[in-house]
Amino acid sequence: MAKRPLIIVTNDDGINAPGLKYLVKIISAIGDVVIIAPDSPKSATSQAITINSPLYISRSYIHPNAKLEYQLSGTPADCIKFGVNELLEKKPDICVSGINHGSNSSVNVLYSGTVGAAIEAGIQGIPAIGFSILDYNWNAKFEHMKKFILSITLNVFKNKLPSNIILNVNFPKLRVKGVKVCRQANTHWKEKFCKRENPMGKEYYWLTGDFIDNDESDETDEYALKKGYASIVPIRFDLTAKDYILKLKKWDFNG
Amino acid sequence: MAKRPLIIVTNDDGINAPGLKYLVKIISAIGDVVIIAPDSPKSATSQAITINSPLYISRSYIHPNAKLEYQLSGTPADCIKFGVNELLEKKPDICVSGINHGSNSSVNVLYSGTVGAAIEAGIQGIPAIGFSILDYNWNAKFEHMKKFILSITLNVFKNKLPSNIILNVNFPKLRVKGVKVCRQANTHWKEKFCKRENPMGKEYYWLTGDFIDNDESDETDEYALKKGYASIVPIRFDLTAKDYILKLKKWDFNG
Repeated sequence: MAKRPLIIVTNDDGINAPGLKYLVKIISAIGDVVIIAPDSPKSATSQAITINSPLYISRSYIHPNAKLEYQLSGTPADCIKFGVNELLEKKPDICVSGINHGSNSSVNVLYSGTVGAAIEAGIQGIPAIGFSILDYNWNAKFEHMKKFILSITLNVFKNKLPSNIILNVNFPKLRVKGVKVCRQANTHWKEKFCKRENPMGKEYYWLTGDFIDNDESDETDEYALKKGYASIVPIRFDLTAKDYILKLKKWDFNG
Repeated sequence: MAKRPLIIVTNDDGINAPGLKYLVKIISAIGDVVIIAPDSPKSATSQAITINSPLYISRSYIHPNAKLEYQLSGTPADCIKFGVNELLEKKPDICVSGINHGSNSSVNVLYSGTVGAAIEAGIQGIPAIGFSILDYNWNAKFEHMKKFILSITLNVFKNKLPSNIILNVNFPKLRVKGVKVCRQANTHWKEKFCKRENPMGKEYYWLTGDFIDNDESDETDEYALKKGYASIVPIRFDLTAKDYILKLKKWDFNG
């Protein structure tokens, strides 16, 4: 690539998140960064988009390594749609989303606004990567990720990642032994709802839960992360279960 | 099945939506219906969940064919989590979500709260179907769908749909020639943002767009719907692009 690539950066923790700040700082070594990120935290918004409310956009001035930065009153997927179709004159060469404060491995990928934005970029024909760290703390350490974030991003250019494939990358806390290519672990959450009473005496519930991982394979993202590796799962947004189509065609819908 | 099955019903248009009302009316012929639906419209919320706000739940009394009905101040995926893990003593035998007012075919499946709820049920190990009609009107006609909704639902019991496969079913308006098993069409939206000014003089944007379908195959949901058929796409929540794993393993992340 002769010219510096144009990199669109977003996340779901909001424009002030330290994870975004760190990602912008290191990724600006590779190309020109334009940030368009939610103006407030939008965790667990999946690929939600805003169709019934107006969107407000404003310039932001808190990321010295960005060429341009904007905050939007919408979801991460809205940010990509707005950035690509309204703000930018040129299609970005790549989208990086994150660094998310918290895991987006296994089934968590489905709820993730960070990965939702990367998938949205994929749909728009832009190679995209979601980066997350298994640390919810706002003061998480990111330095151990730097080498691999840069290497993965450069590999996307070099190897021409097809735009219908997105990379979902998760890092362990503090140390990383290397990178493992994985499949999404078959896990789920066993929800618990914490019942409380508000100051007016009205009952409410808070979603909590236990993470259940019964997938014993050593090929999953959960396994790689447990062993101290970063996990990369190539993901698709064509949800079709192609190997089930023939079976389904045998069902009799007129019976 | 000796006893009447327990059917959990939800949607993303909210508990008052005519599509939900019609679905409950006809599906109650097959089993005992418990509704847990959003207390207000939650269109395009994908598989978002509520982790940073409390959830309020209350009984509802507007659906004469339901055994029990509740409205929740959350997303469709929240409704399934709450229904399955907090409200119901017995695991539902099936989840039906819809009837959504508007298309959830092709790429729209990714934004759909209706299908998001069905996917959530799938993760919880419950066979699940999302039903939608290509008509955004609140006074859409549903009668042409009845025979096929019942047939598809009974087929799920009879053929034991694996719980990691969800059915995404879309119907044309007014008439339906039959049912076609399809794959998700490769489409996208070309977004436009309508710029306006609010009464205080502040600019805002409204997300609109043109739907782009360049997929010329006759095996897609879009094709079936155009030809007057209902489309059924079997979908997965394991997003892994398995056929790309070997290629990705050849990338050099230490280079």
